[in-house]
Amino acid sequence: MRQASIYDTTLRDGTQAEELHLTTEDKIRIAGKLDDLGIHYIEGGWPGSNPTDKQFFNEIKNYAFKNAVISAFGSTHNAKLAPEADGNLQAIVEAQVEAAAIFGKTWDFHVTSALRVSLPRNLQLIGDSLAFLRPHLRELFFDAEHFFDGFKANPDYAIACLKAATQAGADVLVLCDTNGGTLTGDLGEIIRKVQAELPEARLGIHTHNDAELAVANSLEAVRLGAVQVQGTVNGYGERCGNANLCSIIPTLELKCGVECIGKENLQKLTRVSLFVAETANQRPFPRQPYVGGSAFAHKGGIHVSAVVKNPHTYEHIEPALVGNRNRVLLSDLAGRSNVLFKARQYGYDLDKDDPAVLDLLAELKRREAEGYEYSVAEASYEILFFRMMGWSKRYFQLLNYRVLDAVTEEKEPFSEATVMLQVRGEVAHTAATGRGPVNALDVALRRALEPSYPNLQQMRLLDFKVRVMSMAHKDGGTASYVRVLIESGDKQGRWTTVGVSHNVIEASWQALVDSLNYKLFKDDPQKWPRRSVEHGAPPAMPGKD
Amino acid sequence: MRQASIYDTTLRDGTQAEELHLTTEDKIRIAGKLDDLGIHYIEGGWPGSNPTDKQFFNEIKNYAFKNAVISAFGSTHNAKLAPEADGNLQAIVEAQVEAAAIFGKTWDFHVTSALRVSLPRNLQLIGDSLAFLRPHLRELFFDAEHFFDGFKANPDYAIACLKAATQAGADVLVLCDTNGGTLTGDLGEIIRKVQAELPEARLGIHTHNDAELAVANSLEAVRLGAVQVQGTVNGYGERCGNANLCSIIPTLELKCGVECIGKENLQKLTRVSLFVAETANQRPFPRQPYVGGSAFAHKGGIHVSAVVKNPHTYEHIEPALVGNRNRVLLSDLAGRSNVLFKARQYGYDLDKDDPAVLDLLAELKRREAEGYEYSVAEASYEILFFRMMGWSKRYFQLLNYRVLDAVTEEKEPFSEATVMLQVRGEVAHTAATGRGPVNALDVALRRALEPSYPNLQQMRLLDFKVRVMSMAHKDGGTASYVRVLIESGDKQGRWTTVGVSHNVIEASWQALVDSLNYKLFKDDPQKWPRRSVEHGAPPAMPGKD
Repeated sequence: MRQASIYDTTLRDGTQAEELHLTTEDKIRIAGKLDDLGIHYIEGGWPGSNPTDKQFFNEIKNYAFKNAVISAFGSTHNAKLAPEADGNLQAIVEAQVEAAAIFGKTWDFHVTSALRVSLPRNLQLIGDSLAFLRPHLRELFFDAEHFFDGFKANPDYAIACLKAATQAGADVLVLCDTNGGTLTGDLGEIIRKVQAELPEARLGIHTHNDAELAVANSLEAVRLGAVQVQGTVNGYGERCGNANLCSIIPTLELKCGVECIGKENLQKLTRVSLFVAETANQRPFPRQPYVGGSAFAHKGGIHVSAVVKNPHTYEHIEPALVGNRNRVLLSDLAGRSNVLFKARQYGYDLDKDDPAVLDLLAELKRREAEGYEYSVAEASYEILFFRMMGWSKRYFQLLNYRVLDAVTEEKEPFSEATVMLQVRGEVAHTAATGRGPVNALDVALRRALEPSYPNLQQMRLLDFKVRVMSMAHKDGGTASYVRVLIESGDKQGRWTTVGVSHNVIEASWQALVDSLNYKLFKDDPQKWPRRSVEHGAPPAMPGKD
Repeated sequence: MRQASIYDTTLRDGTQAEELHLTTEDKIRIAGKLDDLGIHYIEGGWPGSNPTDKQFFNEIKNYAFKNAVISAFGSTHNAKLAPEADGNLQAIVEAQVEAAAIFGKTWDFHVTSALRVSLPRNLQLIGDSLAFLRPHLRELFFDAEHFFDGFKANPDYAIACLKAATQAGADVLVLCDTNGGTLTGDLGEIIRKVQAELPEARLGIHTHNDAELAVANSLEAVRLGAVQVQGTVNGYGERCGNANLCSIIPTLELKCGVECIGKENLQKLTRVSLFVAETANQRPFPRQPYVGGSAFAHKGGIHVSAVVKNPHTYEHIEPALVGNRNRVLLSDLAGRSNVLFKARQYGYDLDKDDPAVLDLLAELKRREAEGYEYSVAEASYEILFFRMMGWSKRYFQLLNYRVLDAVTEEKEPFSEATVMLQVRGEVAHTAATGRGPVNALDVALRRALEPSYPNLQQMRLLDFKVRVMSMAHKDGGTASYVRVLIESGDKQGRWTTVGVSHNVIEASWQALVDSLNYKLFKDDPQKWPRRSVEHGAPPAMPGKD
């Protein structure tokens, strides 16, 4: 089976993305995950460029990797200095890595207008820089910056740059589409011409996504014989990003017959993608191929009913192969199939013409129009479902709450909440301070409830997301609504609830109350039977929430 | 020059995306923008499927379009009914459109397992459905669902489906990669085989992005002769989305020599992309090729200094061609080039070794570590910059503020803010209620300031974004921080400010105060000279904010 090695540059080129920052600790944690995933090379950064990267190379020496080789990045040496006097090349030597990638100019226009040296001088810079590093490294890669643009402008010069790198000992010539605008057909043609000029060369590919072709271009290069693919997790990178390894790896493994990380490791891909997003504090892109939250999510009624019969009908691969799963979305567009599918999960085998189903669809539609989004807040949906099915038990009832936020010139911001509830026939009136108004409300609410429901101590709030939605032309203008999603968990699992209001505090309150209700409901031995309907069909239409 | 027509299905297939909803009014507004962009066909929906779509087709008749033909979507008729008795085909006739696309099964496995009819019966369904519609329409398209998977499984049957459609009068055979998993090489090979079997056929292409190849596959089909490309604005669609027209159109126009909407219309592309995102309430994807906010944003120090010399160095096209623009990001990674670039915009020609530049970089780094993000909040950066340059004027000073949110069982949520400020030597103490706590604070703040600064009446808050960030291992665990971005505007322009705190109210307050300060600063005739340094270099290091 053909093989290709994966060279990850998330820690270097990935951090060029807007709003993406990684600390040294973040980088070390990500490197560990990439190694575990079976990535062959991890480019840690540019040791000569900044203190974070220098520190990374110092600390990474203390870690043993089972798969990955750590690589350092740098440029050809400063034209005014000898290679051995160049701080950036020296820093690579001092980093004591086994591999390094050195980028050099191969586009004549860049040589003269950005680097501002003569064309022959640039060939010397490439040769001398690589020759200087060669004895210090086990593997040496030459990143031919702007190679495809350079080849189009001056093919002889671009090839001369590659030859200079080869002569100085480069193991792999990595052809870079730095500006990301090369068409797949042009890229293939240029690679074939390079192979004609340098038949022995081992080629790598490094693409950017400015024309949304980074993945296609990387796959085309591998098809033509490239042995190394450079890219980043989730395609992070400057401008439109780098080639997305989370798409390239499964396509190579599952569709192209090229082995890179192995089928077993492939199952970790979704987890690694999320881990990197989380660590880099990036909102995961739901439509991301293979690993995205929506990648195998079905909403259209026809699709849902077909997928329920046979997932192969609307899924190009089995989601479990990449560690993902399929989902059926709840939505006003979805029609009854989705509602019936969920009902079955809750133990109700409802008929599609059951009036309860129609009422539930109508209620769902009304609430979604208000901004509730149940596809991401299934616990809130489950509460709604059981309320509609006649579950009328109330664990507590709100009398009132109040939150005060105050700031004075000298003091830290201060949040205080008071809550008055009816709990099991008694009035509970509590107060609490907190880190922000939502935290204060949460603490006060628990103080009121925990004496009656000690199991609430087991649960905690895990995440809190706020989205401002502008709901156009409701009563004329545009009104801003706030949707709050709260993720909570206990030892058994996690659940998400939703609240919507034009007031962020009220929206948070709704989601908090749903979350506590869900915990109480799921632990309640007297709740409606969930896995069977042996007590007969539930009574029709209860008092709504 | 070769031409290809663009068939937009944002209003139909696009709305299959998770968390994407469009009302009838939304659809009509989007259709108007697509027409203005020069799109040839706008698929409005499935008139037989749901009331929103039916209403759209009723209302759209009242609009005159200059470029676009409105198209309706539907499936082959119900196998148990005659075509004329099928409600979904009838609805298309009643919609009185000039064009329609009818999808039919072409994958044998789907015919027998999802549709559950015999293979010959499915050929009849295709032929009869199209023949029934033919006299009612000017243009009739056949969407060959799952064509590429179908061809791989049973090429003869897939071709037979196309032939049935052709015989029944289909104008274009649209080959669909419904599951989105087809490799570009396989797709090209299958298209060539189809062309060998049906040399007269006019082909269209409809791809999905499940292997991140939707754009590459669409371009390959056009290269081989397809005359129609189906896709959606921003690639919205089920699972990983449809082929992204915002990438396909500029690539065809600017790189492939294929005319579709014309170069003049192309300049509207970024605006239309944002308009659709806004209307569909989708967060724009910053790394989106061509039209994304980061598509031409430069962060790496080397890139920035090269782009300042010549944008062509790191930009594959001129951003203005698609109505976008380039940006230089402020970031701890950026180095001095970016800070100097911005300083020049503000009228300061600073030396790169100026101690003020080093102090500013250090301060920027410290604040970014706390969660401030200046690349998206340039007004806050500008205030910080001028403070660091010695601008010490204070338009007002906070003494204290207080916000109360209260809910009782019977009443709507209630927010009241009080603000006490020192303004021009006087104490202003105001109170206000509002739609939510931030609105109440905003109103109270303006009440305190407007008597002294009436120009604040010209500005208003345009958008308000909240992001919860989990900042790992600061003092041990994970702390949640809230970052608030506020966009404000007046007649002259728009600006964005940022606030960070673990308290959403405090973070909002910071961003509000920055926004008001920015307005006062930019209107202030006595502010520091911004366009020249004729009064001499600014004094070094003032008291910081």
